[in-house]
Amino acid sequence: MYNYDLSGKNKYYTLYSLIRDDILRGKIKCGEKLPSKRVFAAELGVSVVTVQLAYDQLLAEGYVRSKERSGFFAERVANGLKGRQPSAVKAEEKGEGDKFAIDLVHGNTPPDMFPFSVWARLMRSVLADCGEHLLERVACDGDEQLKRAVAAYLYRSRGIDVDPRYIVVGAGAEHLYGVIVQLLGRDNLYAVENPGYGKISSTYALNGARFLPVNVSGKGIDISVLEKSGAYACHVSPSHQFPTGAVMPVSVRSALIDWTKRSGGYVIEDDYDSEFRLTGKPLQCMCGLCPERVIYMNTFSKSLAPSMRMGYMVLPPALHARFMQIFSSSANFVPLFEQKTLALMLDGGYFERHLNRLKNYYRNIHSELVKKLAALPYRCKLLDTGSGLHVIVKFPDAGSDDKIKAVAAAHGVNIKCLSDYLLAPAEGLDGCAVINYSGLTLDLLSKF
Amino acid sequence: MYNYDLSGKNKYYTLYSLIRDDILRGKIKCGEKLPSKRVFAAELGVSVVTVQLAYDQLLAEGYVRSKERSGFFAERVANGLKGRQPSAVKAEEKGEGDKFAIDLVHGNTPPDMFPFSVWARLMRSVLADCGEHLLERVACDGDEQLKRAVAAYLYRSRGIDVDPRYIVVGAGAEHLYGVIVQLLGRDNLYAVENPGYGKISSTYALNGARFLPVNVSGKGIDISVLEKSGAYACHVSPSHQFPTGAVMPVSVRSALIDWTKRSGGYVIEDDYDSEFRLTGKPLQCMCGLCPERVIYMNTFSKSLAPSMRMGYMVLPPALHARFMQIFSSSANFVPLFEQKTLALMLDGGYFERHLNRLKNYYRNIHSELVKKLAALPYRCKLLDTGSGLHVIVKFPDAGSDDKIKAVAAAHGVNIKCLSDYLLAPAEGLDGCAVINYSGLTLDLLSKF
Repeated sequence: MYNYDLSGKNKYYTLYSLIRDDILRGKIKCGEKLPSKRVFAAELGVSVVTVQLAYDQLLAEGYVRSKERSGFFAERVANGLKGRQPSAVKAEEKGEGDKFAIDLVHGNTPPDMFPFSVWARLMRSVLADCGEHLLERVACDGDEQLKRAVAAYLYRSRGIDVDPRYIVVGAGAEHLYGVIVQLLGRDNLYAVENPGYGKISSTYALNGARFLPVNVSGKGIDISVLEKSGAYACHVSPSHQFPTGAVMPVSVRSALIDWTKRSGGYVIEDDYDSEFRLTGKPLQCMCGLCPERVIYMNTFSKSLAPSMRMGYMVLPPALHARFMQIFSSSANFVPLFEQKTLALMLDGGYFERHLNRLKNYYRNIHSELVKKLAALPYRCKLLDTGSGLHVIVKFPDAGSDDKIKAVAAAHGVNIKCLSDYLLAPAEGLDGCAVINYSGLTLDLLSKF
Repeated sequence: MYNYDLSGKNKYYTLYSLIRDDILRGKIKCGEKLPSKRVFAAELGVSVVTVQLAYDQLLAEGYVRSKERSGFFAERVANGLKGRQPSAVKAEEKGEGDKFAIDLVHGNTPPDMFPFSVWARLMRSVLADCGEHLLERVACDGDEQLKRAVAAYLYRSRGIDVDPRYIVVGAGAEHLYGVIVQLLGRDNLYAVENPGYGKISSTYALNGARFLPVNVSGKGIDISVLEKSGAYACHVSPSHQFPTGAVMPVSVRSALIDWTKRSGGYVIEDDYDSEFRLTGKPLQCMCGLCPERVIYMNTFSKSLAPSMRMGYMVLPPALHARFMQIFSSSANFVPLFEQKTLALMLDGGYFERHLNRLKNYYRNIHSELVKKLAALPYRCKLLDTGSGLHVIVKFPDAGSDDKIKAVAAAHGVNIKCLSDYLLAPAEGLDGCAVINYSGLTLDLLSKF
């Protein structure tokens, strides 16, 4: 029996899926003992670890149970799952957006776009080359080599000349938001963009800081409100605001810098998807304009993979000194192993090659998407700045945002509107769908 | 020239050290160009990546500079470093404790005790077996497989039957302390042990929560103070208090549990070095006594390596539900790669084998240490509970704690006293040295 073909990649996952499907189909009966790991591994020509990983996964999901010293046994399949197609089960394991054929709300870069073989090769190099040095405690602001690689990358890609000493490596954007609160003070007021990315304001709140939503328009954040608010820091995404898609004009950038100088406050420049400018050059970062008052931050979760919890910020020298004072006895949150691998990826040019490939990919998606939108039987206008991985589509005759979402849902499309991202009331945003196309594929688009 | 022998492990580090030492000795002169990476790699029979890592390290430390498109050049050696022995430079790169021949304050497990070849092999297995699945977003409370492996380990090692669902994986103890504040509320009062591990109270403070030092004695924390304080949570280390070394008696454990029931509060059971009970069995965890009111936590930074930022906590079911509510849209901070590797290490029994090896190692260190202490020309008494990696030595005739530290320093030994760990005044702690022997080696001990 167990005539399984594991010749592809990801042997463990393939084996797990094959056994799971056989249990679901009743080919492996309830109570039936699975082969011992050692025997099965020999039979399939894979390592014992592969079988163990597969069994562990089945155990974790409740498809098998384990009996001390006697092995693994197929479990009774829950009533809800019985008779279902294995593929249906798989779809149910996923989240909210998966009820829809097309999810334009969540969406992540397709995993097969990730240069996994390069990454794995660099990991093996790091493992062989660094050896036991990988076990050493990492300085609280990150590995020297990665910091230097990030500085060189920022110089190449964003044209800013950053001293690597002032870079802080962290476990993704959320972690860094929390560090900023610890650094700038919990009692201060943090201005955030409205509408905005909910995670920013919620993370400030979770860290015990007050936040103030300030309206953004095509002209960027409203400085007069900021002025009166007494805010200490202002968190913005000048290169591509989420969700409005606005690119902050240079005049607003300098007005913001002026505000920091008058108020003694800081700008937090969240450059989260600036890599994905599909046409032309991005505007200069604010951090280049005034390194003393701007905290620059970015993450690799969007450009590499959502499981890569790595981001960084460039601190003004005085804040970096404060950081080192607060965290001197702490270790960095990101394993040295991942830091060294990412450093090699940046230094070897692999990251930029990957980004170029991704950008080409998304250019195709974008142009197909534009065609599909033009063919819609509704009057609509694409508000597109050529930056980032989402666009705004205005439907002037829609009536209400709920109507837009309902019509989309009826076609199997999950969508949100600008109004869904409001933290406080704001006018003039009705009838605008936010289309995050980072999870779209040409295949999915062709079905419409 | 460059007649380097890189036949051992850690080629990159060896290469870096050899070049660095040659620059320091003047064998490579200021301005001299280093061989191109490709040529050098071929000459030495190593990969280009190895040379790149070595050059990057030299660059990061300022021994060489890089010129666009022409390569790497030796830098002028800073005046302070000139003429020094390379080994002296290396010692200077380290921290405070390294001014002493023996550091009994900081100390980490010697890196060569880490089963690196097993860890590297498991990493390669995970890389080959999980493939691109490693890029998937990890649930906010951690990877299923690791959670299950931790639960099974807790059952084997601590005899507690934990539902893996309620486990939360985090990036080390400090990260988890912060999560606890987000979970239990920043406005609540957190009781901590006095004297105590400074990182606990400082992390509560950094996260904006108030903490209250409550005196501990051999009888554990003073419940009557706790009672009157209005504290919501009480952070304790029942299996081995730091720094007093006390093991909390069962009577105090049940009194604490009673307190949580009366007050509606929680106990945070920090089991940070319970693995290192060198004789006999540890007492049952408090979490086993009352899973509804006890948050159990532990970390692998102590038992594996300081760079492994992995820890976990077991939450009461109601708190786990709250955790999932707060963090549902967040990804876990620990890379899936490390989580899968650790799961295999636990499931394959490698972790326990490693612990047993470590315990044997420390038993030897401990008994040598006891001999050395007995031979001291001062009256002293060892207060030892057979648990954890530090002991208390009382010097009744010392006069003052400063005297103890000064005498030790004169012998090249870095030491602290119980009074150094006080968060608030407490009596009866004078004359007690805290000896953390986790970084000691037989070699170091033999020199005394």
